[in-house]
Amino acid sequence: MVKKLCIIGVGLIGGSIARAARLQKQSDQIVAVGRRQDRDNLQRALDLGVIDAFYTDDIEAALQDVDLVVIATPVGAVEGVFRQLAPFWNPQTVYTDVGSTKVSVVEAARKVFGRFPEQFVPGHPIAGAENSGVEAGKADLFSDKRVILTPLAENSDSAVNAVRQFWRALGANVSEMDIVHHDKVLAATSHLPHILAFALVDLLGRKDEQQEIFKYAAGGFKDFTRIASSDPTMWQDICLANKEEIIPLIQQFKTELGKIERLLAEDKGRQLSEVFAYARRARQRFLDLFNH
Amino acid sequence: MVKKLCIIGVGLIGGSIARAARLQKQSDQIVAVGRRQDRDNLQRALDLGVIDAFYTDDIEAALQDVDLVVIATPVGAVEGVFRQLAPFWNPQTVYTDVGSTKVSVVEAARKVFGRFPEQFVPGHPIAGAENSGVEAGKADLFSDKRVILTPLAENSDSAVNAVRQFWRALGANVSEMDIVHHDKVLAATSHLPHILAFALVDLLGRKDEQQEIFKYAAGGFKDFTRIASSDPTMWQDICLANKEEIIPLIQQFKTELGKIERLLAEDKGRQLSEVFAYARRARQRFLDLFNH
Repeated sequence: MVKKLCIIGVGLIGGSIARAARLQKQSDQIVAVGRRQDRDNLQRALDLGVIDAFYTDDIEAALQDVDLVVIATPVGAVEGVFRQLAPFWNPQTVYTDVGSTKVSVVEAARKVFGRFPEQFVPGHPIAGAENSGVEAGKADLFSDKRVILTPLAENSDSAVNAVRQFWRALGANVSEMDIVHHDKVLAATSHLPHILAFALVDLLGRKDEQQEIFKYAAGGFKDFTRIASSDPTMWQDICLANKEEIIPLIQQFKTELGKIERLLAEDKGRQLSEVFAYARRARQRFLDLFNH
Repeated sequence: MVKKLCIIGVGLIGGSIARAARLQKQSDQIVAVGRRQDRDNLQRALDLGVIDAFYTDDIEAALQDVDLVVIATPVGAVEGVFRQLAPFWNPQTVYTDVGSTKVSVVEAARKVFGRFPEQFVPGHPIAGAENSGVEAGKADLFSDKRVILTPLAENSDSAVNAVRQFWRALGANVSEMDIVHHDKVLAATSHLPHILAFALVDLLGRKDEQQEIFKYAAGGFKDFTRIASSDPTMWQDICLANKEEIIPLIQQFKTELGKIERLLAEDKGRQLSEVFAYARRARQRFLDLFNH
């Protein structure tokens, strides 16, 4: 339970945190900080009752007596947010973020503060949707979802505990991971799949302009490409921030595709079927995990 | 309305056709033909009331007085089915299939019969699921779904009309297409996406054995990889049968991935975001089509 919660960036995730904190009575007061060009969105958040007040310029007022600050901007903006926060950095306040990459966020903190600040606990809720903006937010977005915290040795135990308690109160299952391992795992299960979906729809979109191919696509295609409707700016940031992990995965994926291409060219039916069967079993293993 | 319907291969699609024909009162009698090793599945279809009788050896009895034969085996088995049907080929009977590739099926027919048989109307219902077997069948699987017929100049109008009427009675939207265009369109919207899903889960499955990455995958990954749970044998057949269309698409996709890889390596954020934004708009165009 925090008295005053400040959310920086009230999009899908920031808006859902505010809604969930309200519903679970985890904060007496919720204020938001955003850029001037986001005023319309902030005003909608206020009209919807998701937040109690918002600030675009007077950061100091927003941060007054705040217990917990949640940075919920695209990861590329986090360094700039740290610079804005730095002059008002408060040892009584706990800070966290929700970025899909953690190495870049930790580097940004070190760069701005000269050392890693003990009250900033890097975090990442594994939840989302292809829609964006405060209207797309849901109070139960984190319910039974995983939140990964990636605390560093420099972090104070009390800050880590406060962030863990906050997420648990919002219904999430909180676990901890090393920042490098986090970025490796997420590159595989989230960043690469998004790139594949964007690449496929990009390729077919250009064909479709000539051939009307989408007309004959079915439900499987809709599911497969759902993540290609994700926010382009957010994904530009994530991909650039985690490119050291993503580029080798793209290369491995191209090798994997080359293997399938060769099996096709050489009519190696049995081996092709073995690749497909291995994938089917691996997905079943994933489903067994996912449904527990 | 047909008096006697014969379905060859009672899996997800064949079983759903039988259920739909029963529900829509489109056939007085439904018989099935299958291989001896499929007896258990055929018996389940009988027990479920999906079919009235089944045959594994006495094809002649199965085909007696049949108005419509639907070949619903994997496409790799169609040539063998034509050979079994050939001795009992009946000018009073209309034949169709449900294969995901059409050039290979037409070639198989020409090979077995020496010329293209006027009563065989190649067809493809754009419907399915990642589950297989007669239990996975649903009477409404084709309701409001597209069925593509790819009739040839050799086809008799009456045969084409009979197949069109049958599918319409099952609730499908029937359209016609050239066999080559069909295989090109389906390679893009179905075959390539399946290969990408299989390849991704294959790649990550091997990593997961070391790293437990699936544990931290979210709902987007589940949707994205759903089609990797499809039947491996069926997909081996489809991929080999349509490899002339699929291989160039795999190459184009690798080029597309290479482009994204280069933008990442060179930190070209704006161009990356443009690729993603183009994909997002293209998917919206697809959704607008899909929901009408």
